Amino acid sequence: MPIETLPLIDHHCHGISPAQLDWKQFQALFSESYRPPPPGTNEFQKPLGLAIRSFCAPLLDLEPHVSGEAYVEKRLALGAAEVNRRLMRTSHLDCLIVDTGHRSSAIHSFEETGALAGRPAHEVVRIEAIIEEVAATGVSAENFARAFADRLAERSAGAVGLKSIVAYRCTFAIPQSAPAPAEIVKAVGAWMKASQAAGKFRIGDPTVIRHGLWVGAEICRAKKLPLQLHVGFGDPDIYMHACDPTHFTDFIAAMEKWQVPITLLHNWPFLKEAQWLSEVFENVYYDAGVILNYGAAESENILREALQIGKFQKFLFSTDAFGLSELYYLGAFLFRRAFQRILDSWIRDGFCSAKDADEIAALVARTNARRIYQGV
Amino acid sequence: MPIETLPLIDHHCHGISPAQLDWKQFQALFSESYRPPPPGTNEFQKPLGLAIRSFCAPLLDLEPHVSGEAYVEKRLALGAAEVNRRLMRTSHLDCLIVDTGHRSSAIHSFEETGALAGRPAHEVVRIEAIIEEVAATGVSAENFARAFADRLAERSAGAVGLKSIVAYRCTFAIPQSAPAPAEIVKAVGAWMKASQAAGKFRIGDPTVIRHGLWVGAEICRAKKLPLQLHVGFGDPDIYMHACDPTHFTDFIAAMEKWQVPITLLHNWPFLKEAQWLSEVFENVYYDAGVILNYGAAESENILREALQIGKFQKFLFSTDAFGLSELYYLGAFLFRRAFQRILDSWIRDGFCSAKDADEIAALVARTNARRIYQGV
Amino acid sequence: MPIETLPLIDHHCHGISPAQLDWKQFQALFSESYRPPPPGTNEFQKPLGLAIRSFCAPLLDLEPHVSGEAYVEKRLALGAAEVNRRLMRTSHLDCLIVDTGHRSSAIHSFEETGALAGRPAHEVVRIEAIIEEVAATGVSAENFARAFADRLAERSAGAVGLKSIVAYRCTFAIPQSAPAPAEIVKAVGAWMKASQAAGKFRIGDPTVIRHGLWVGAEICRAKKLPLQLHVGFGDPDIYMHACDPTHFTDFIAAMEKWQVPITLLHNWPFLKEAQWLSEVFENVYYDAGVILNYGAAESENILREALQIGKFQKFLFSTDAFGLSELYYLGAFLFRRAFQRILDSWIRDGFCSAKDADEIAALVARTNARRIYQGV
Repeated sequence: MPIETLPLIDHHCHGISPAQLDWKQFQALFSESYRPPPPGTNEFQKPLGLAIRSFCAPLLDLEPHVSGEAYVEKRLALGAAEVNRRLMRTSHLDCLIVDTGHRSSAIHSFEETGALAGRPAHEVVRIEAIIEEVAATGVSAENFARAFADRLAERSAGAVGLKSIVAYRCTFAIPQSAPAPAEIVKAVGAWMKASQAAGKFRIGDPTVIRHGLWVGAEICRAKKLPLQLHVGFGDPDIYMHACDPTHFTDFIAAMEKWQVPITLLHNWPFLKEAQWLSEVFENVYYDAGVILNYGAAESENILREALQIGKFQKFLFSTDAFGLSELYYLGAFLFRRAFQRILDSWIRDGFCSAKDADEIAALVARTNARRIYQGV
Repeated sequence: MPIETLPLIDHHCHGISPAQLDWKQFQALFSESYRPPPPGTNEFQKPLGLAIRSFCAPLLDLEPHVSGEAYVEKRLALGAAEVNRRLMRTSHLDCLIVDTGHRSSAIHSFEETGALAGRPAHEVVRIEAIIEEVAATGVSAENFARAFADRLAERSAGAVGLKSIVAYRCTFAIPQSAPAPAEIVKAVGAWMKASQAAGKFRIGDPTVIRHGLWVGAEICRAKKLPLQLHVGFGDPDIYMHACDPTHFTDFIAAMEKWQVPITLLHNWPFLKEAQWLSEVFENVYYDAGVILNYGAAESENILREALQIGKFQKFLFSTDAFGLSELYYLGAFLFRRAFQRILDSWIRDGFCSAKDADEIAALVARTNARRIYQGV
Repeated sequence: MPIETLPLIDHHCHGISPAQLDWKQFQALFSESYRPPPPGTNEFQKPLGLAIRSFCAPLLDLEPHVSGEAYVEKRLALGAAEVNRRLMRTSHLDCLIVDTGHRSSAIHSFEETGALAGRPAHEVVRIEAIIEEVAATGVSAENFARAFADRLAERSAGAVGLKSIVAYRCTFAIPQSAPAPAEIVKAVGAWMKASQAAGKFRIGDPTVIRHGLWVGAEICRAKKLPLQLHVGFGDPDIYMHACDPTHFTDFIAAMEKWQVPITLLHNWPFLKEAQWLSEVFENVYYDAGVILNYGAAESENILREALQIGKFQKFLFSTDAFGLSELYYLGAFLFRRAFQRILDSWIRDGFCSAKDADEIAALVARTNARRIYQGV
């Protein structure tokens, strides 16, 4: 069965926005920037914008390549609920594994998001979100560690994995051992004091995050959950050079000893480094995530780079979609399209048989995810 | 109108050499090395050498693929003036934006260079050249800041932008705030003393360069000029790993607040990083510059990498040509050829319409440059 | 003569295993990991596994794409000696330049390895192996430098080059000058004490390795030998981000002054950086080595990246094969196949003539290696 018709496990995505999105709001949801594009320009003027106009438009009963303005107008006319239903049903996902730790009040819950796709959804708990949630309760620095451990255990109870965004909160170029209790109390205290003054709990302190990571790692070890690590492309306020996942080699190696699967997310522009880690560490899995959407017109070449040496039994599918149902649909569509072309070229060039290609597709579509995410 | 026939704004180039160039001199002008190639070899034995022999030869009334020796001989026979005129006129440039701060005594002025192309030329002032020029006047360290500010303002009066080569003088991995007055005096004093002893004013001190950058940035802010930053491929005496532009994130973010456009030049091997910066920062523009010439035979694949996620309204054309009119001609020829092929493949694959492709081409050929360079 | 039929100088490989390799042992020899793949998976589930099943199987009288299990079974039935002979003879190598410093007791000697290929073999001496060998003799820290210098000179007597694995023992991000005698004694003493306690001499100390490098460099300078540097992809216990060869710019520049050729090995994921070094430094050569095997199905695209700006007179062929004769055969087969396709496309696109392509192929196949390795 070719990958074009295989249901895919989306092992990393977010919830869908139920909102009626206007011209400005719609664009903001497919931009990684805090700011609008320069005056006189718009977000449709990039590869992802072309892809929405080309491939999503027909699902809204529009001609391919309609203008961005016409697309947004029709989306409003049909209504977000109808658009979300059409795009999600056409994505042919097997199930959704949803990170619920990002702007969760603005989007559908993971169960609702799954319902729109007509498929089961599972939760991944973001460690940093729990750190912030616990800190905001007003717990003392001394009691933080216990309260955090309890809350993370509780939230993880029904989850299929944990996730950390250490890369964009303080980069991977940090110490990687578990901090000592006294260090934790001191770092938590300083951060909470600053946060209370600022009226906002946004964790960026590397000691507190490292503590969160190691507490999360122990849960993963005990419950046989994978730990997702965001890599590369993502928030604007990062130092990209220090988001190279090979800066995190010591932590990854420690998790290998614990037999905790690490799933490296997105990885662009570090796709080669992620593959190398999947080759040398038994526990490392990776995907190409959000970059196939952003690099739409070149997604086949990007996926080729992601598969240079990559182990077929370590590569996962994800959309990293957030908010727009377009991003789920395109993520699945562009991945299937690119992967099918690549496998076809490998068959043509004698590198594999049609049966091999089917087996590779099955691994990536579902088997690999099922090996590490329990019950999906 | 396809990009093959669109006049291009070359937003970053240098002057043309008027000299009759012999075998050794001609090769030196298409090498990034301080030294000749190993004995028994020559510079034609690389992709750029092939491209000169293949695509420039016919403009000198030679067969494609003539030997390098025959090419240089014919070039001398026709005379540099005639060769420069033929190649520049065939480049179909709209206008030239010329960095005048590099070995300017050895080449035509920017006005003369434009005249050879039969098109207008505009000046970009290199901050480091002004630092060196002012230091060489013998000004005291205490008076340097004032003299530099005056001279930079004066030289910028007719310019369409400023440029810094901080990347190859002291890398991007430096502090990025404006230095304090006392620091500046101290750093200028130490550098001038060392320079007077050496008899050569070549600025490499990060404090002095940072000062220059911030003074330049204030001019850009006040006069709405873009600031060009050299990235990656360039001088031999650099530490390439520290020329990753994401090391300069803090400065770039500060310029976003000031609404100063930053144009990242060349960017190879950091083309992906440059695109990411163009996605997340409103003020970041980028090009692929000189690398399309050096990677001639693979220029289509290089340009594909440069366009993976790149915003069409942020991408610029440049040749970074210096000295040889061949480099202007090939820069324009290879860019047009590669871009046309890429756009054609996107149309074929359904990612855009022919009208979209024309609009993208128009943005890159001229519209984007006109948005940030006033009066071009 | 097309590169498909040109005998190739393999300028960097290792010895062949004479052992009868079972299912587990065979897989271990085409993995870079210390561990087996996850339960339920195997090493054939990656591009290199596909290539063995596709292209080596017919040489063992099997159909292409047979299962990994069937391949290993037939390999055992034919016997390692017969398999090695078949694969090596079909590799069409001109000669082998063999690094003898890695697990040499488990594999054929370099002479025996050459004999299996029916071609001459030459030795490259690994500096770190000699450091470890001398330390294990029980020499005192004070006498180490002399004993090491003597032994390295002795072992280099018949060698065609030296090699260092500084990148994966302590990264390239280290001081690069020759350490002072007192520093060396101190560092050697500390390392030998720790090694005696551990019962294992594995050199990782940067001061001791730097000393070894500079002693090796002096021999290279005096005897006109090239110095090979391992770059990037390799051992699992490295920090990949610090294996970027541009971290070693100062040492490379020092070797340029001494006219010692540096050959950068493998270079993935730093293929662009290696090319840049070959452009700016007269003494830098590079290859794509082991990555064409690991990235088998995408080897043409990988080689295209390796040839973007690379100087044709600086690029070398190698397999980096260790243990399995499959890796020599595939290394040569995939390189020839990819290079031929690339050159053909360059001819088709007008970038070079058929004669140019033949000349480029000849440079890479043998001429470049002969320029720097004496007597090969």
